[in-house]
Amino acid sequence: MEKKIDSHLIYDGKIIKVYKDTVKCENGNEAFREVVRHHGGVGVLAIIDNKILLVKQYRYPNATDTLEIPAGKLELGEDTKLCALRELEEETGYSAKSITQIAKFLPTPGYSDEWLYVYEANDVFKVENPLNCDEDEEIEVVAIDIDKAYQKVVNGEIFDSKTMIAIMHAYINKRKI
Amino acid sequence: MEKKIDSHLIYDGKIIKVYKDTVKCENGNEAFREVVRHHGGVGVLAIIDNKILLVKQYRYPNATDTLEIPAGKLELGEDTKLCALRELEEETGYSAKSITQIAKFLPTPGYSDEWLYVYEANDVFKVENPLNCDEDEEIEVVAIDIDKAYQKVVNGEIFDSKTMIAIMHAYINKRKI
Repeated sequence: MEKKIDSHLIYDGKIIKVYKDTVKCENGNEAFREVVRHHGGVGVLAIIDNKILLVKQYRYPNATDTLEIPAGKLELGEDTKLCALRELEEETGYSAKSITQIAKFLPTPGYSDEWLYVYEANDVFKVENPLNCDEDEEIEVVAIDIDKAYQKVVNGEIFDSKTMIAIMHAYINKRKI
Repeated sequence: MEKKIDSHLIYDGKIIKVYKDTVKCENGNEAFREVVRHHGGVGVLAIIDNKILLVKQYRYPNATDTLEIPAGKLELGEDTKLCALRELEEETGYSAKSITQIAKFLPTPGYSDEWLYVYEANDVFKVENPLNCDEDEEIEVVAIDIDKAYQKVVNGEIFDSKTMIAIMHAYINKRKI
């Protein structure tokens, strides 16, 4: 346990809030903690004909393209399942009859409070007039065979945490091990 | 591609730097990007007698204990392998004859440039007079059977991204699937 002594809001942004807190450690020492607060996000593992739906997009912080499962940020208090279904439809044009949570995790527990929720889509179907993406989101949808997607995790071509976890889940479950 | 037009340093911290950048999107629109810059970190999958070494520690941002593989932050320009071996020794009292990279990933590609490097330790051995932890780090070492650790990933008791990826890697490789 560390006890909060003081909290200073450094930045109140659109996506993140940044705090510098002063804490009292268990050994009695005082220390600073830099904390990024974020409402969390969702991702969806959607499989059609043994292929995983992935989106290719440009990610500014590393100036790189990534292959990721369809995903998005949660608004404060938003229902995670509804958010997941909306992002799936907006980004891929597909929806699902139901979704099941397969992971809930902290990408960076050391300095951020962000939770990511990963769902598996059941009974995936094409939507006739799907919701549109945000206009500044430029994405391309690709469908990759589960085994090939897993190989891309192993060889480092797929390097986003939630996507790696979803693909490893699909790979393990396909083999029922 | 998004082209940087302007970059404003919001916070120059010990662990993170926070920027608010203005970019020009492919469609010509201007947009803001909030970016957390971080030197990255390392984690080590160390297996002894079919058991994975994990550390239990308190994580302030979510006020929760976590079970994680031994891990630590990189200093700017630090060798990732040396950092991994040091963190393994400091946190567990074990070292390894060599280590092999099993993953290099972005925990949160949307707003952070942080890379995490995960290594597997080969020929793990106990160090007689190991390096000590940072004095403000209160950790407890546990060794958990690979299958049991995987069950803790599935049931949500283990919820740190690098640790989930390392354990799923061990689980898949143990079965050579």
